[in-house]
Amino acid sequence: MKKHNFYAGPSILPDFTIQKTAEAVVNFAGTSLSVLEISHRSKEFVAVMDQAIALVKELLEVPEGYEVLFLQGGASMQFCMVPFNLLKNKAGYYNTGVWASKALKEAKFFGEVVEVASSKDKNYNYIPKNVSIPSDIDYLHITTNNTIFGTQIYKDIEAPVMLVADMSSDIFSRPIDISKYDLIYAGAQKNLAPAGVTLVIVRKDALGKTGRPIPTMLDYNTHIEGVSMFNTPPVLPVFAGLQTLLWLKENGGIKAMEVKNLAKAKLLYDEIDRNKMFTCPVPDPEDRSRMNVVFVMVPGYEELEKAFLAKAKELNILGIEGHRSVGGFRASIYNAMPIESVAVLVAAMKEFETQN
Amino acid sequence: MKKHNFYAGPSILPDFTIQKTAEAVVNFAGTSLSVLEISHRSKEFVAVMDQAIALVKELLEVPEGYEVLFLQGGASMQFCMVPFNLLKNKAGYYNTGVWASKALKEAKFFGEVVEVASSKDKNYNYIPKNVSIPSDIDYLHITTNNTIFGTQIYKDIEAPVMLVADMSSDIFSRPIDISKYDLIYAGAQKNLAPAGVTLVIVRKDALGKTGRPIPTMLDYNTHIEGVSMFNTPPVLPVFAGLQTLLWLKENGGIKAMEVKNLAKAKLLYDEIDRNKMFTCPVPDPEDRSRMNVVFVMVPGYEELEKAFLAKAKELNILGIEGHRSVGGFRASIYNAMPIESVAVLVAAMKEFETQN
Repeated sequence: MKKHNFYAGPSILPDFTIQKTAEAVVNFAGTSLSVLEISHRSKEFVAVMDQAIALVKELLEVPEGYEVLFLQGGASMQFCMVPFNLLKNKAGYYNTGVWASKALKEAKFFGEVVEVASSKDKNYNYIPKNVSIPSDIDYLHITTNNTIFGTQIYKDIEAPVMLVADMSSDIFSRPIDISKYDLIYAGAQKNLAPAGVTLVIVRKDALGKTGRPIPTMLDYNTHIEGVSMFNTPPVLPVFAGLQTLLWLKENGGIKAMEVKNLAKAKLLYDEIDRNKMFTCPVPDPEDRSRMNVVFVMVPGYEELEKAFLAKAKELNILGIEGHRSVGGFRASIYNAMPIESVAVLVAAMKEFETQN
Repeated sequence: MKKHNFYAGPSILPDFTIQKTAEAVVNFAGTSLSVLEISHRSKEFVAVMDQAIALVKELLEVPEGYEVLFLQGGASMQFCMVPFNLLKNKAGYYNTGVWASKALKEAKFFGEVVEVASSKDKNYNYIPKNVSIPSDIDYLHITTNNTIFGTQIYKDIEAPVMLVADMSSDIFSRPIDISKYDLIYAGAQKNLAPAGVTLVIVRKDALGKTGRPIPTMLDYNTHIEGVSMFNTPPVLPVFAGLQTLLWLKENGGIKAMEVKNLAKAKLLYDEIDRNKMFTCPVPDPEDRSRMNVVFVMVPGYEELEKAFLAKAKELNILGIEGHRSVGGFRASIYNAMPIESVAVLVAAMKEFETQN
């Protein structure tokens, strides 16, 4: 029976990615070997890595001077690698959610950190506006999508300093102007691949300026020189990521994806705003995430939360429990989520309103 | 047609692992979701992680006081994490090959490093004997199997200090006395899983003694407290690793594996020693690796190297090109390699001798 996978990550992937990966686990690229047991130095896998890098560049229109890397360790490892490679004296961080705050905390191992903007005062339910960005910081770090509280920064920020962005949960969901950023990273387990690979896009000239010695594996230049194969890469996650990139291209690329994502988000937010039983904790529609739609029961109906979760489960709507720090519900509607599944959720909300 | 996968890593895995993983990519644990898109916090995946940790403990007879972790980044990341966590003043390293030498070099970022023993003088073709281990070092680091030059340390070393071992290419191939070690690590892509996960076994009391602040993701205690789920783990590689552990248990565990590995190694080394065209560059049979069997053409026959590689290819014998630093051939015969495939290689060597 069809399941509707609203998990926040690891999360829904295109059927194409799943099918091609299942095939490659049995027989990879006509080798009669499994992708699980193929040498990363085989010409067949080197071709996978090269094509994945080329497609990221093509789909995101990555300008000259930038490198695309596939690393391990997730965004959490990037919280450490970014300041290790870029923080000389002082860095600025937006504190717009749990992950942003973890990234900020980690940077303190490496130098002075300024909280340039924060939405902590209102439990991270908005994106700070009219932020004055200091010019004496080495870089500004932002988290473009706040998976837990359901907010998102859509507009590429104009920064007078180097700009670093954690795009783990919204990369490939909308066009971005890469030239405005110096480093972008994204744990792949939302819009790209299964868990175990992290995408990094870095402007080469941004590196090597701190004077700090960097352990080999934590130095971006190691992986640039090794073309993401300095050591054995996570072969299967990279292979699966390539399938998603091929699917993205086949389906019109990132602009087409944005159109679909806008339609899905509108369908769900409109219902939340209309429905008398649910409400969105993010008041400003302009701040609401198109990837992670957070909603709660309206005051007075809290005791019905479990009943709605039970109803969702009956309808094969999976993974909509909200994060414990917000409660309520969270529907993650990444690129691979079909609007039909969002419609099933919306229908369940309507029915729940009528029944209660 | 049946392929004989002699790649050094990523390398052959049991058919059981490949088949179960292929099934889970389509439908994981009866969820109707792919293992590629399942939340790592789902009860089904938490059960996978818990069972994998429990089986490592059971199969290796891990004593109380040790923790089993599944991390990312490969052995190369451990070259950095080990000294970050354990090196206060001075560490001692065996320099017995390319990987040992990389580990040694990396430790120099963190303190003084003593080369306790080395076989570099003879292109790493032996294991140093009668080594005097200094007692003023924080730990001794060894690499139990030398994948490139084909040597192996079989006996658990008695060290007067903490003992750290890189067992990437021989873990699970023979019984080890874990209590003699303080930390063991192993990139999983040889005897355990596809690339993308690294096994660490660490004695808890060995940690927290350097006084050095450690970035969150590089601190073993982070992953102990998070039960290898501080952040999203590499879900599929861990799942596949569990399948190999189940296969190991079903097939008699590590003692049974050692018996098979001894038989495979004997079959191949006996032929190398007998055959007039091939020779093993590791002179002492006691130093020869049972995992990576390195052999070259005898002097005078070097020009036949390509012909033998071509013959091997015809017979679907894959991955026996030697590493560029040794030349010749390398047959990696990890746990999952059936003796029948080794026999095919031996038959090819006999035939090649007759024909030339």
